[in-house]
Amino acid sequence: MRVLVLGGDGFCGWPTSLHLSARGHDVVIVDNFARRNADVELEAASLTPITPLGTRLAAWAELTGREIGFHRLDVAEDYRELVDLLASFRPEAVVHFAEQRAAPYSMKSAWHKRYTVNNNINATHNLLAGLVEASVDAHVVHLGTMGVYGYAFGAGIRIPEGYLRVKLEGTDGSDIEQEILFPPNPGSVYHMTKTQDQLLFAFYNKNDEVRVTDLHQGIVWGTQTVETRLDERLINRFDYDGDYGTVLNRFLMQAAIGYPLTVHGTGGQTRAFIHIQDTVRCIELAVEHPPDPGDRVRIFNQMTEVHRVIDLAGIVSRLTGAEIALVDNPRKEATENELDVDNRQLVGLGLEPIRLEEGLLREVTEIAERYADRCDRDKIPSRSLWTSRLPAGAGVPAAWLAGAADVPVDRAEAAARFSPAPRS
Amino acid sequence: MRVLVLGGDGFCGWPTSLHLSARGHDVVIVDNFARRNADVELEAASLTPITPLGTRLAAWAELTGREIGFHRLDVAEDYRELVDLLASFRPEAVVHFAEQRAAPYSMKSAWHKRYTVNNNINATHNLLAGLVEASVDAHVVHLGTMGVYGYAFGAGIRIPEGYLRVKLEGTDGSDIEQEILFPPNPGSVYHMTKTQDQLLFAFYNKNDEVRVTDLHQGIVWGTQTVETRLDERLINRFDYDGDYGTVLNRFLMQAAIGYPLTVHGTGGQTRAFIHIQDTVRCIELAVEHPPDPGDRVRIFNQMTEVHRVIDLAGIVSRLTGAEIALVDNPRKEATENELDVDNRQLVGLGLEPIRLEEGLLREVTEIAERYADRCDRDKIPSRSLWTSRLPAGAGVPAAWLAGAADVPVDRAEAAARFSPAPRS
Repeated sequence: MRVLVLGGDGFCGWPTSLHLSARGHDVVIVDNFARRNADVELEAASLTPITPLGTRLAAWAELTGREIGFHRLDVAEDYRELVDLLASFRPEAVVHFAEQRAAPYSMKSAWHKRYTVNNNINATHNLLAGLVEASVDAHVVHLGTMGVYGYAFGAGIRIPEGYLRVKLEGTDGSDIEQEILFPPNPGSVYHMTKTQDQLLFAFYNKNDEVRVTDLHQGIVWGTQTVETRLDERLINRFDYDGDYGTVLNRFLMQAAIGYPLTVHGTGGQTRAFIHIQDTVRCIELAVEHPPDPGDRVRIFNQMTEVHRVIDLAGIVSRLTGAEIALVDNPRKEATENELDVDNRQLVGLGLEPIRLEEGLLREVTEIAERYADRCDRDKIPSRSLWTSRLPAGAGVPAAWLAGAADVPVDRAEAAARFSPAPRS
Repeated sequence: MRVLVLGGDGFCGWPTSLHLSARGHDVVIVDNFARRNADVELEAASLTPITPLGTRLAAWAELTGREIGFHRLDVAEDYRELVDLLASFRPEAVVHFAEQRAAPYSMKSAWHKRYTVNNNINATHNLLAGLVEASVDAHVVHLGTMGVYGYAFGAGIRIPEGYLRVKLEGTDGSDIEQEILFPPNPGSVYHMTKTQDQLLFAFYNKNDEVRVTDLHQGIVWGTQTVETRLDERLINRFDYDGDYGTVLNRFLMQAAIGYPLTVHGTGGQTRAFIHIQDTVRCIELAVEHPPDPGDRVRIFNQMTEVHRVIDLAGIVSRLTGAEIALVDNPRKEATENELDVDNRQLVGLGLEPIRLEEGLLREVTEIAERYADRCDRDKIPSRSLWTSRLPAGAGVPAAWLAGAADVPVDRAEAAARFSPAPRS
């Protein structure tokens, strides 16, 4: 199958491109190197020594004999070039990762908010308008986020795969049943753009019958896949900084360099997770099982397990001996939440999840400890505040800012929250 | 009150600016003349002879002694200038009309789709990010549209003011009640941008406590208000072209120049309407009654009556003697729909609606007949097709395209649909 991967040099895009190529698909990458440029801006870098894309692609061809094409263009800006590429390559599937994907980065400043909205909305819209203009009937596989659902809404219900069945009262007093797009409740500008993407997909699906699969992904953990592990030149990114590093990566780095694991707030935030190897497998399943013409937008929940942040800290602490530090939460979010998620569609297509308890030790030894000497410890704390109304320095223990190693740890509170909460 | 009117030179913005100034508010207009530039692009013009904004403002000052300020800037592009203006003027209310507002225009081509999305989303987001950056606690009064609700969903229910009470099934089988933003169902790229705006407002309201009133307006009819009628130099726009002319304006023009009234499809489309005089009154009511700090986004349905398109044609036909012609529908929309809309909030604040049956004759004589010699009849048919799958020439009777005066009219079908449908 001819597959265009927008954002194919990024953390999810690169292993997806390799995996689809390994599966025999004809892959072309589009990227503008926005993620590498953000490293320059943030003065942060992947812990793993990623090579330039040219080196990556040459190594892949050398190792496998398979060529992956590449076009440098900005999907949000270079519309004509995008349409020309769609018209000449005529992809059967377009995997769309060409969006700014970090919630803290999207909240850093007005510039970052505006960049995220402008980039993400125009990238998605350019793709959809471009497919219609070029008359290319490609299946769009988009990386959404579990964050479109929000977390406060979930208490007492199971998060369905995109659509929610509700009853409402008709004018004559009778109940009317409807299936609606799950009411969005995004927690950051980044997450909000993904809820706006949903409206773009719904419209172009209704008006132009564009086939779309929207994958509402949990927080990705893990670094390597079968393909990126083949050669160090193919290694995937590992971000641990306060903007792009996900919670588990930050814990792993903190443990590797002998710092306490900093938990925002109480750690009662419950989130959905998935391993990067399962991510690429899910994309493959979506690409190889497209919706039928005329189908509504198909939504899968791309996650495999659910954990409280404090419990993740506990697992990492058990594996490494690291201590846990509770710090103020820079985000405006519920202190605690429950989360129960339906993911039957991808499992039904054949996904066999990698469990966090099984895979995490490999991550500690293969990545965090192996490359620990490349870590810049100043980059780990999150400095993006969600609003000016939060306490100054929220999310950043004073000792971190001062560069001191001795972080005060509220051990009693951490211990009390350590054991998993009973599920009601 | 200090009020900034974004898009204050446009069809709704201009009479709103005058009305708020007449009410004693300190008004500053922002505009980039996008609407006048679209006239140049479309080779169409307002039927009424609108004067340049400088002439308008000078005439207003001369007649009333009241000054209205003006800054030429593009809200979607000139972010720094916008923030500087917010920080120096420190508005207590910002009325936001700075969006591309025509559904057919938004569907003309990929360029028009992309312009509409880019302009509307970035304009709204720049305003919200700018208010947060400048720490200006202004009440945002935004012109939304009844089109966010869509029309297919409405059968059997009364459209509430923004929020819908629904029941859903909890994991333990019990019913959970929630009030959610009404599930959007936009019918064009333009309408879709207004559903995306709702997500921007909800996020900035939740995260930064920005106070917002979103006015979901019906189709505006009428041209003049008490203030624009004071002097011909203050006259408001009257658009009758296939892109910017609303259905009633096109009927009035067709009648004035002796052409049949072209009804798209069966004319069974039911829509909400409001007179421009009531629009400016509603904006005044919203501005002068802001939400309390901490309130969620307030949504009013800004409409006063509901009509089927075929019935509107009937009213105009009775007033003028014009015939009715049923033509193919260029839009992808339901052939017929019912519409029952709650508008109690604005009525509760004191709105006393102008009825279409009372005001329409004045529109015929004061505008359509008076300025009929300025009409370019080639501009009346709508040439924007919603999708390439619609029949070629949909919405444009062959006789119009050929310039012939003799349009075939399906009189029997028109007559059968003429009497109002019973409301169930």
